[in-house]
This record gives sequence, C-alpha cells and structure tokens, in this order.
Amino acid sequence: MLKNFSLHPQLDKDTHLLIDMKEFQVLLHKNATIPWIIIVPKTNETEVYNLSQDRQESINDMTKEIAQFFETEYSTTKMNIAAIGNMVPQLHIHVIGRKPGDACWPDVVWGCEYPYKDYSEKCIERLKLHLIKGFNNK
Amino acid sequence: MLKNFSLHPQLDKDTHLLIDMKEFQVLLHKNATIPWIIIVPKTNETEVYNLSQDRQESINDMTKEIAQFFETEYSTTKMNIAAIGNMVPQLHIHVIGRKPGDACWPDVVWGCEYPYKDYSEKCIERLKLHLIKGFNNK
Repeated sequence: MLKNFSLHPQLDKDTHLLIDMKEFQVLLHKNATIPWIIIVPKTNETEVYNLSQDRQESINDMTKEIAQFFETEYSTTKMNIAAIGNMVPQLHIHVIGRKPGDACWPDVVWGCEYPYKDYSEKCIERLKLHLIKGFNNK
Repeated sequence: MLKNFSLHPQLDKDTHLLIDMKEFQVLLHKNATIPWIIIVPKTNETEVYNLSQDRQESINDMTKEIAQFFETEYSTTKMNIAAIGNMVPQLHIHVIGRKPGDACWPDVVWGCEYPYKDYSEKCIERLKLHLIKGFNNK
C-alpha cells in the first residue's frame, strides 16, 4: 500500500469513485454510454507487470467480477482490458464492456468521440454495492 | 493446451511468428515503426481473466521480458498492454513499447495510421533468440 495516495486530477475529473480499498481505488467513467471502470492500484509503479503477484491476481479477480456485472446489466459481450498510461502516468487499468453496435464498435474507445450520457445516482449506488459484495466474496 | 491450435488469419497476416511454445505463440507485428509483440495463448477462452492463474503469470512474465527488451533496444519508456479482441475474437494480448514522439504518441496505436517500416531478418532473429533465452530463464 502507498502512504499518501492521491488520485491523478485527470482520473478524478473523468470518473466517479466507486470503492476506496486499502490497495486500490475503483472508479467509474462518468460517460455511461459505454460501461467503463478503471482500477487504480495504490502504488508508485507505472507498469502492471511490476506489481506483486497478489496484486495482479486481485486485479484479475476484480476484472472478472466487473465483466460479469457488465454482461448481466449492459449485455456486453467482449471486455477491453488495458493499461495504457501515455497521458496519465499514474498506473490505471481500463476495464471496458463492449458489444457490437455500441457507440465506438469495433474501434477502441480511446480516441473515439461518442455521445455523453450520465449515470443516475441510483445506478451508481447499485454498481457500488454489487462490486463491494463481489470483491468481498473472493 | 489446445489441440489443433490454429492462428487467426488476420494475426497471421499482420505478424511474424517469433516463438511457438506449448501454451503460447509469440508474434511480432510486421510494422517496425512501433515495437509491438502479440502473445496468443493456445486456448478457446476469449478473455484473459478466464485463463488459469499459471497462464496469467506466464503472460505477465513474458510481458516483463518483452518490456525490458524494448526499453534496451528501442528506448521505449511506457508499455501499452491490452486485450481488445473486438475484431479478432481469438484471445491475444498486445504488448507495445511506446515513447514520447513516436509515430502515434500520445494516442493509442489502434486506429492510428502511421508509416510502415520492415524489420530486417537479422533483427527478427536477434529478438527471437533474446526472448527464447529470457522466457527459458524463468
């Protein structure tokens, strides 16, 4: 765990905080048009392969949980999972639910301009509760 | 391991085969302008989080080895690591070495049009030997 963790301003601006855990923050991209969660490990490392095996396993477990939720709630059929970090150096993993015909399909979401839609407060709470429960069951 | 593994024609067209292992194929994207390796697990799964823990660890180890090579040989400073699969359903993991000022920086490579450059045979052989050695040392 990193003492004095502070979220990069760009991530803070683009997302809602879903869960703040000891080792991770889990963020929801504000644009609801494409379901998109961002996992931020509390670390100074900038590459995912430099994290401990435990942390890498946790990320995979969380990703799986998120994928299942996206499949059920948003009928997504493919996950796009990526660590890019060209613009925001703080390590963050994109977990994006995709399906044929969505606003960017079959292109990637980065660099794709697509309409903005807000999440409802109710929806954010639901997502939060579901993921907290899912992550705790592991 | 998957019996009768067969590489997707699009991946076959876009890459040179670097290493054919029991559990993986390791491919080199033909365009040398940006160093880009693709790891293909021999599996019918389409999502990386559904692979066994062992396979996920192997992918991380290989990614780290590739990153070190790209840093040394091509002075890359950031890795872009992603499983997308919107167009090619066969599971494949992109491992791309990036640096400020490269042909797509700071954008992602997918959807970016950039000049084509061939790898020399010598360079491909060197990369192959280096990675085989690196992967075996794990």
